[in-house]
Amino acid sequence: MTRFHVTYRIQAADLTEARQRAEGVALEQTVEIPQDVVPEGYIRNEILGRVEDIGAEGEGRFRATISYSPDSAGPEFTQFLNVVFGNSSIQRGLRVMAVDPGAEMLRRHPGARFGISGLRRLAGRASGGMIAPVIKPQGSSADALARVAYLCARAGADIVKEDHGITDQPMAPFRERVEKVADAVARAAEETGHRALYFPSVAGHPAEIFDNLRFARDVGADGFLVMPGLLGFGLMHAIANDPELNLPVMSHPSFLGPYVLSPDTGLDHGVMFGTLQRLAGSDISVFPNVGGRFGFSEVECRAIADACRDPAGPGLPILPSPGGGMSVERAADMARMYGPDVVYLLGGSLLRLGEDIGTGIAAMRSAIDATS
Amino acid sequence: MTRFHVTYRIQAADLTEARQRAEGVALEQTVEIPQDVVPEGYIRNEILGRVEDIGAEGEGRFRATISYSPDSAGPEFTQFLNVVFGNSSIQRGLRVMAVDPGAEMLRRHPGARFGISGLRRLAGRASGGMIAPVIKPQGSSADALARVAYLCARAGADIVKEDHGITDQPMAPFRERVEKVADAVARAAEETGHRALYFPSVAGHPAEIFDNLRFARDVGADGFLVMPGLLGFGLMHAIANDPELNLPVMSHPSFLGPYVLSPDTGLDHGVMFGTLQRLAGSDISVFPNVGGRFGFSEVECRAIADACRDPAGPGLPILPSPGGGMSVERAADMARMYGPDVVYLLGGSLLRLGEDIGTGIAAMRSAIDATS
Repeated sequence: MTRFHVTYRIQAADLTEARQRAEGVALEQTVEIPQDVVPEGYIRNEILGRVEDIGAEGEGRFRATISYSPDSAGPEFTQFLNVVFGNSSIQRGLRVMAVDPGAEMLRRHPGARFGISGLRRLAGRASGGMIAPVIKPQGSSADALARVAYLCARAGADIVKEDHGITDQPMAPFRERVEKVADAVARAAEETGHRALYFPSVAGHPAEIFDNLRFARDVGADGFLVMPGLLGFGLMHAIANDPELNLPVMSHPSFLGPYVLSPDTGLDHGVMFGTLQRLAGSDISVFPNVGGRFGFSEVECRAIADACRDPAGPGLPILPSPGGGMSVERAADMARMYGPDVVYLLGGSLLRLGEDIGTGIAAMRSAIDATS
Repeated sequence: MTRFHVTYRIQAADLTEARQRAEGVALEQTVEIPQDVVPEGYIRNEILGRVEDIGAEGEGRFRATISYSPDSAGPEFTQFLNVVFGNSSIQRGLRVMAVDPGAEMLRRHPGARFGISGLRRLAGRASGGMIAPVIKPQGSSADALARVAYLCARAGADIVKEDHGITDQPMAPFRERVEKVADAVARAAEETGHRALYFPSVAGHPAEIFDNLRFARDVGADGFLVMPGLLGFGLMHAIANDPELNLPVMSHPSFLGPYVLSPDTGLDHGVMFGTLQRLAGSDISVFPNVGGRFGFSEVECRAIADACRDPAGPGLPILPSPGGGMSVERAADMARMYGPDVVYLLGGSLLRLGEDIGTGIAAMRSAIDATS
């Protein structure tokens, strides 16, 4: 069986120490026992992680690629992540820089079902950047949120996405809200002849989430917003791969910040918001845009977009979705930076327009199209 | 309704900037729109986060306490975490230092069902440190793991815990393994008259996890090992609060490292491995022990143990469970450091003893009892 490969950045004084640390990771992520206790045969030859390559990256930094057995990860996506970085996430000076699933893990976790081409087909937008206004704020009634969704859909939004903080609160309970918003989006489609896709935010007690999702699909939802940092990557994987639901997934970075913020722990930006999202089945990966409220750099945002769209990455290429920092004034710059295969989240500042929110969406559409 | 309070450490040049950042967090974690767009009335007065207190902590560091409405969090534990630190987890120079749920959130998330006293009753150990050997390594057959469990249980282990990396792999599929290990532990109990508790590692596709847990309970499991960093805090909360299962939960820190490693991002050690575990229903919180393979300091480990056991904390006090770095030689030091209410994980080095693993457990028991 093809082993999968994880490349780590390792802080160490020299190559000898780096190799020791890499051998330690190979043990930690699999058998979790001292080297001399590892049983001979299958466990030592197949299960134990194997340091395949190691070299210097820079002053005090090394790169080591370790291979693991698909038997170690088994059928579950969470256990795959557990082998990639479970206990070793607690080590200082250790960061995941690349994950290569190989043929066998890709067979188990084939990635996005829709990807860029599938989303374009569903949204009816063959080319150019896509626009996804976010309906909010939290605390609004289901009727108020449905009104915002209607105005956005009528104005030509490609995707009407719910704010990730809107889940199942008493002001707008999940089922009441999803039904009303879906109706509003459908009404806009009847009036314009163009249907915006509607992605509600996944909510519910773990035992009832799938019932909620089937309900949402039945009343007209076109996909789902999922927060893997809170709901778990395994749940997102299960939603994305559910044969009965068969709807696209947009992943949201909530609670995932600490994984990327330090250059010497966690996971590289492209791995977290590109590779892992693809492997977990996301079709659209939301991340904080350069120039917005969060501190991601242009280099980091480009790395994320590249990791989402790289044809050599796992499964279908997916859509990067920078959130925040987007305006008509910045549209040309953003379009040059991200190219056409992108979903722009348009957030709270649009709400300033009130009932005229549609003019904001139209202005953004023109600004993006003018660049392409 | 009693609001809940979150205290953040904020990096800022001065108090004015710190206050601006705190006001930004209050917006970000709730309405996620600019201040001037927040609707008057219920949303501004109730939903919007409120900076209740702010002051200097040290050079360039401030502390701000923000209160939030239970309406903002709704009924779900994941949404509660989303309000505590969802998007703000992506901000640099911002760390959660304390979470005070208040009466209403504590009513929704009452914490551990068993806690220290409940676990002692179940384990039949009225006083003194508890011993939990870990059965492994990954790659072993179900029969081999059951043999290790039998030897540990017969030697007087309080809890026989599965390694977190043993889930549902083909070498020892979940149901086959749990049935065999439970039988082995039961056989040891018949021979000695003392029953060790058996905690299998939770596994399964999200749609079948609860079926797996009911199966485990029916064949004799006494509790569960859960990895909230991978399976989600919401799932752990659901398992711990499931009225039908009604079994204790031991939480494992896999994949949670990046949340605590930087002093200026993420969550404080005591919040992550104490307060949040209690609120999510864990009865035993595993964390990496000082002096083991991970770099936690004695101060950090003491803070975790304190946060687990503080009578003023949310719900029942729970058992801290330092993993790694434990040996007969260190037992007296550890017992002095942690006191009697603690579960010591005993890991891979015990396996060096092979069929004599019981002598290692007996030696540890004597060493711990000698100190108390």
